[in-house]
Amino acid sequence: MDKYSIRELLEKPEKFNNKQITMSAWVSANRGNKKIRFIELNDGSTVNNLQVIFKGQEFNFDELDQIHNGAAVAVDGTVSLTPNAPQPLEVIASKINILRDTDLDYPIQKQTINLETLREIPHLRHRTNIIRTTMIIRSALALEMHNYFNENGFLYFNAPIITSNDGEGAGETFEVSDSNSKNPFFGDDRKPTLGVTGQLHAESYVVGFKKVYTFAPTFRAEHSNTKKHAAEFWMIEPEMAFADLKDIINLADDCLKTVIKRTIEKHPNEFDYLTRNVDSNLLTRLNSFINTKLSVIDYRDALVELNKVKDRFEEQNIEFGLDFGTEHERYLAEQVFNGPVAVINFPKEFKAFYMHQNPDGNTVASFDLLVPGIGELVGGSQREVIYDKLLQRTKEVGINQEELQWYLDLRRFGDCGSSGFGIGFERLVMYVTGMDNIRDVIPYPRTSGNIKM
Amino acid sequence: MDKYSIRELLEKPEKFNNKQITMSAWVSANRGNKKIRFIELNDGSTVNNLQVIFKGQEFNFDELDQIHNGAAVAVDGTVSLTPNAPQPLEVIASKINILRDTDLDYPIQKQTINLETLREIPHLRHRTNIIRTTMIIRSALALEMHNYFNENGFLYFNAPIITSNDGEGAGETFEVSDSNSKNPFFGDDRKPTLGVTGQLHAESYVVGFKKVYTFAPTFRAEHSNTKKHAAEFWMIEPEMAFADLKDIINLADDCLKTVIKRTIEKHPNEFDYLTRNVDSNLLTRLNSFINTKLSVIDYRDALVELNKVKDRFEEQNIEFGLDFGTEHERYLAEQVFNGPVAVINFPKEFKAFYMHQNPDGNTVASFDLLVPGIGELVGGSQREVIYDKLLQRTKEVGINQEELQWYLDLRRFGDCGSSGFGIGFERLVMYVTGMDNIRDVIPYPRTSGNIKM
Repeated sequence: MDKYSIRELLEKPEKFNNKQITMSAWVSANRGNKKIRFIELNDGSTVNNLQVIFKGQEFNFDELDQIHNGAAVAVDGTVSLTPNAPQPLEVIASKINILRDTDLDYPIQKQTINLETLREIPHLRHRTNIIRTTMIIRSALALEMHNYFNENGFLYFNAPIITSNDGEGAGETFEVSDSNSKNPFFGDDRKPTLGVTGQLHAESYVVGFKKVYTFAPTFRAEHSNTKKHAAEFWMIEPEMAFADLKDIINLADDCLKTVIKRTIEKHPNEFDYLTRNVDSNLLTRLNSFINTKLSVIDYRDALVELNKVKDRFEEQNIEFGLDFGTEHERYLAEQVFNGPVAVINFPKEFKAFYMHQNPDGNTVASFDLLVPGIGELVGGSQREVIYDKLLQRTKEVGINQEELQWYLDLRRFGDCGSSGFGIGFERLVMYVTGMDNIRDVIPYPRTSGNIKM
Repeated sequence: MDKYSIRELLEKPEKFNNKQITMSAWVSANRGNKKIRFIELNDGSTVNNLQVIFKGQEFNFDELDQIHNGAAVAVDGTVSLTPNAPQPLEVIASKINILRDTDLDYPIQKQTINLETLREIPHLRHRTNIIRTTMIIRSALALEMHNYFNENGFLYFNAPIITSNDGEGAGETFEVSDSNSKNPFFGDDRKPTLGVTGQLHAESYVVGFKKVYTFAPTFRAEHSNTKKHAAEFWMIEPEMAFADLKDIINLADDCLKTVIKRTIEKHPNEFDYLTRNVDSNLLTRLNSFINTKLSVIDYRDALVELNKVKDRFEEQNIEFGLDFGTEHERYLAEQVFNGPVAVINFPKEFKAFYMHQNPDGNTVASFDLLVPGIGELVGGSQREVIYDKLLQRTKEVGINQEELQWYLDLRRFGDCGSSGFGIGFERLVMYVTGMDNIRDVIPYPRTSGNIKM
């Protein structure tokens, strides 16, 4: 294995000056003539390429000319700094080993392919600059999330994926079965489904562990065919005991700012690429979020703001009880606050049964964090801690008490109240990369009718 | 929120000497008399408790006496070092706020409950020392895994969970459906199942990213009711391009040693607890693994070793073609090598279709890493890179070529060979904690007939 990546070479050029190196990677570009040839290599560590120069009679230039984009090669050479070029260094090759070329129908060629076409080839599209960059940032964001919660004393908790509880009480769930229908794997009395949230289980662990988080796939069988919905997506769900709505909004704000800031700092080349190719306003927008105190607005006040301009919305029935659509969310974030905003205290009717009921009797201690371009990125709440109130609410929404008795019982066993939220990880990747469609930030997206590969 | 955890207090006692602190946590023990009371608190940050002392007329000792185990309290007090006691410090309380006591049927009391009984209350059992410790180590191992692969330049890759490919070619899979059977969510032509591995998809990403890993739940509808099988478990699956069997065994060895070493270093109290309560030999065994070069033995040589003592096995038909059972695996690790051993070059008959076929025509470039007490902990292989050989093998094992054409095509598009392995995360947690049953290292385990809560 090579000892260093192209990213390391490009980030610390002085360290490698005049050094002999070996680099195994894939060809991104190949140009030149019969006397000199420039082959650019990429190893996936960064969006940027390593330029390798071939000159001298030891090379067969006809053979070099025939190497196609996407070919796997191993190159020996000497690093040479190039202070006046866009890239800080290049490699003067002494040897090349063509390990595996590509067949002629390899689709990733020099010309740009549009994102829709790339969705047909999820097994290859990450070898374009745009998907490569997106996946590098996706990976970086995931790691920063884990680090953030670990640094802040959160236990990483794995909720079950196959469950017989429907956490949201209303979600469209996928059912799970094995082929033996006479003798169901999990028995006759429960209907196993794929979890839509890890929250209820996380609430049990937060009593005792104080701070826990999940980071796991969740599933919704929603047929909605939008740019921001997928049937399978990853969620990050922290939960804190001894914490109320204000604490958890502060956590969401600090978490997002920290994670985004560190990701930007560690990936200057990728954000440079995204700013040039995806959204010229990207870094301005992200830095503005990082450096601005999060705005908070009460749901009722948000209604007032929306009513001022109700003509511009498809859904114009803007009164108490309205669950915001993406158009309303984006208006608030983009036009009213010009940045992220937390809307708090939603009507209880369209929120989950477990949310803490406010003294007004109509609203719950919940929040949605809305961001420009996406709408809802984070949703969370303070959980109802009073057993009787919680039980009453499960009855109102028609939940089988017996199935949730274990959850209700937490309130009898030292649960003094907790709060938590969920971040849709793919929406975060969209927000941070500027990518417009959730299908382009998931390696193999699952949506209605689509289980390609 | 409190500014520090009990773990931080106990780890850096000098820093807190004579400081006023507030601590919100749960009562682990409560003893004393009418003049002085000792309440031990635990906040889940460590297995060890914080002792809080109540004395003086500001306290109602009858009320303090009535606080039950598991109650949530907030205590104000002053830290006092106790250099001669087992614990480095205690807190002299000035105030206590009983936030939420437990009902009388709270099952976690002073007396020890056996692990089988605890499995009936997965929502509460983490509030015992043994499950608390296990889950702390589980969380720590997960974070060290992410850090290890990130430090070594691996992209964190999320394979799809719902898939139409069965990676192992033979596994018992769970089927996924939505309630609308007339119009299946993913269309009519594919049977969606829960993935048994992320490997095939990871192989596509390793072409281009060079080093990737997954860390995600996987599913098998195996009815086997053993101590080490679960229907839902997490796997870590790294994949490296430009790497052969030897490289990947070295990676597995280095990864495990690094992750285990760091976990032990960061959790002295938890390993002290496990050594005293679960396995007195635990640290000796783990340190021996960390400090010993991994043994490697060819499958054929392992057969010779097993044949020497065939009488002791239930399966005594020990000849070429035997897929080792746990009894064979454990004998090799425990008796022959007295530590972890990698068995390499298994017969191709019982191994997956994608493994690189050795020149002998009978075996594949695969390895199983066996550890004492568990048997197989890691399994991996070099992947077949030659298109025609891979195609031939898919036909031999009856895989539909059309469904896997995308995977075969990787070999036509610059895939010059990769190698990878899978670590069963729960088995790693068992190995590192000494816990004997997989049901005790997963918060809410799923096994045949069991979908409790």
